[in-house]
Amino acid sequence: MSETMTKVDAQSLSALTSAVFKKRGMNREDAERVADVLVWADAGGHPSHGVARIPRYLEFIDRGDLDPTASPGLAFETGAVARLDCNRCAGAVALAKAGEIADQMAAASGIGLCLASETTHIGAAGYFAEKLGHRGKIGIVLAASGPLMAYQGTAAAAVSTAPLAICVPAGSKAPLLLDMACSIAALGKIRQLAAADSPIPAGWALNSSGQPTTDAREAKIQMPLGGAKGSGLALMFECIASLLAGVPLLVPALIGGSRKRHSQNAAVIALDIEAFIPAQTFADQAAELVDAISQLPKIGESDILMPGERSQALRRHTMKDGIPIRKSLWDKLQALPR
Amino acid sequence: MSETMTKVDAQSLSALTSAVFKKRGMNREDAERVADVLVWADAGGHPSHGVARIPRYLEFIDRGDLDPTASPGLAFETGAVARLDCNRCAGAVALAKAGEIADQMAAASGIGLCLASETTHIGAAGYFAEKLGHRGKIGIVLAASGPLMAYQGTAAAAVSTAPLAICVPAGSKAPLLLDMACSIAALGKIRQLAAADSPIPAGWALNSSGQPTTDAREAKIQMPLGGAKGSGLALMFECIASLLAGVPLLVPALIGGSRKRHSQNAAVIALDIEAFIPAQTFADQAAELVDAISQLPKIGESDILMPGERSQALRRHTMKDGIPIRKSLWDKLQALPR
Repeated sequence: MSETMTKVDAQSLSALTSAVFKKRGMNREDAERVADVLVWADAGGHPSHGVARIPRYLEFIDRGDLDPTASPGLAFETGAVARLDCNRCAGAVALAKAGEIADQMAAASGIGLCLASETTHIGAAGYFAEKLGHRGKIGIVLAASGPLMAYQGTAAAAVSTAPLAICVPAGSKAPLLLDMACSIAALGKIRQLAAADSPIPAGWALNSSGQPTTDAREAKIQMPLGGAKGSGLALMFECIASLLAGVPLLVPALIGGSRKRHSQNAAVIALDIEAFIPAQTFADQAAELVDAISQLPKIGESDILMPGERSQALRRHTMKDGIPIRKSLWDKLQALPR
Repeated sequence: MSETMTKVDAQSLSALTSAVFKKRGMNREDAERVADVLVWADAGGHPSHGVARIPRYLEFIDRGDLDPTASPGLAFETGAVARLDCNRCAGAVALAKAGEIADQMAAASGIGLCLASETTHIGAAGYFAEKLGHRGKIGIVLAASGPLMAYQGTAAAAVSTAPLAICVPAGSKAPLLLDMACSIAALGKIRQLAAADSPIPAGWALNSSGQPTTDAREAKIQMPLGGAKGSGLALMFECIASLLAGVPLLVPALIGGSRKRHSQNAAVIALDIEAFIPAQTFADQAAELVDAISQLPKIGESDILMPGERSQALRRHTMKDGIPIRKSLWDKLQALPR
């Protein structure tokens, strides 16, 4: 917590990030997309999904788990559903493309679902849901990865943390953007407490032997929010994002003996508001909903915040005034070949 | 907890239930649907969504909030989306119809979403998701109602408890059926503890003044699972199920001064597995996933259960051996005109 921070302007951070990936063979457009997704997370106060991931992405490239030259290819598009085979391209590239396809299908059919299979770390799912929101769609993104979280009753990692983002445009107000995972606590939060030598509350995590622990430094396996609820959702996300694409992630990791390659799958759903109701009517209703809830009596001193409101406010500020980055990370990033 | 229970055979319970609603003017098919949904919940061990609701449904009829003679009408169907205007019909009738339409659209377009607007208490959302699962579809049902649960930071009921059901067929195994709400604890559970003079854990509920309470008898407002996560999901469900249909439920209840009429909205989504992958391949993968997770080391003594497994096992038993019903409720139901 006491770690030295520095402020980096958004443009410099983006430029450095994209330069690093271009140096590794990524084309300019893709490198800029990866940079945009990572910087978006840092700017919104989610450094665990920001440029701190760059060294790990480079490891993925070194290992052949991420192919910086790969592009997602359309395996099929029929009716209102499609699948992109992503060939281990950068997750940001895969999800941006899946969002475009879902958007087009929604424009034609009211709804569109595009699977993005065999991609890599997608970053903040909220970024892609918000992109759809900015196009006047309701955007839903759900993702599947290897086992990181216990399933209700298991003493081992069994399912992903089930990232889920939903974005709803709200007219003149900022879009409502729920960007969550189905674990009780984010790994980033646990690592923060570990760095501060603080314990974690009981029930947050298991250690590497599958035993409950309150030692943040020993925490290895996250626990699901609401037990059977959070882990049930994670199981369903694997069925939807992975099994529908024919690319299971959990089974090979749970029973396979071979080296686990990093991989993620996702599903992007777009809903065309205009297919249901005039966009202005929807926007007015959404704004009224925001007002009605914001004006309710508060419990305690804290504000009543809409989904995404805190990040959106922070992002407006940091995009202008600079994004706080750990000094040690910034030094490390600047030393990368580019 | 010490309440006297009696065992009623499923057929008698269904027959009585449908007779009660036929007596109130419902046609036979609709009355049998309502009975089927209520008995399904009791048979699966969820009496809070079972025949205990009958007296309340009859009150809704008396007040004009539920029209037993109403049918849902198709407002539009375009591409892969549709809306049913339900005219205050029984929720079970509305959702069964919405499921059929979503199913047909999914067969044509890979996915289908049908809104059911201005209906009444839908009962167990899982029933309708499971129906889609039995037809080889992935079924998703989400619902919106008036304010029952706090939104993160509010000292008042602000959002619904956000019922969500997802059903995934798993070939020779029982379908995976997640049937949850986004509150920390179900109202039924809180009432059980109240009946047993037991306190509720801190954080479960607020009293009618919006203050936190551990007195189960005083608990009025449920708290959201994961704070901003559970209440954010509930907000999104209102946007999707209610605002897309142009029938907001929360705003009129939060700011309106007039008598609140009971009403619910829902969205039913069907995904056609065959549009993505051969059904047999999907079923095999799902069965492997169930096996892989079931065989992981257990924490403690409790079994590792798949979503819906406990209810499905109980239902097999109670449908044959009789469904436990509170004696006092059974007496009350038998005294109803039919």
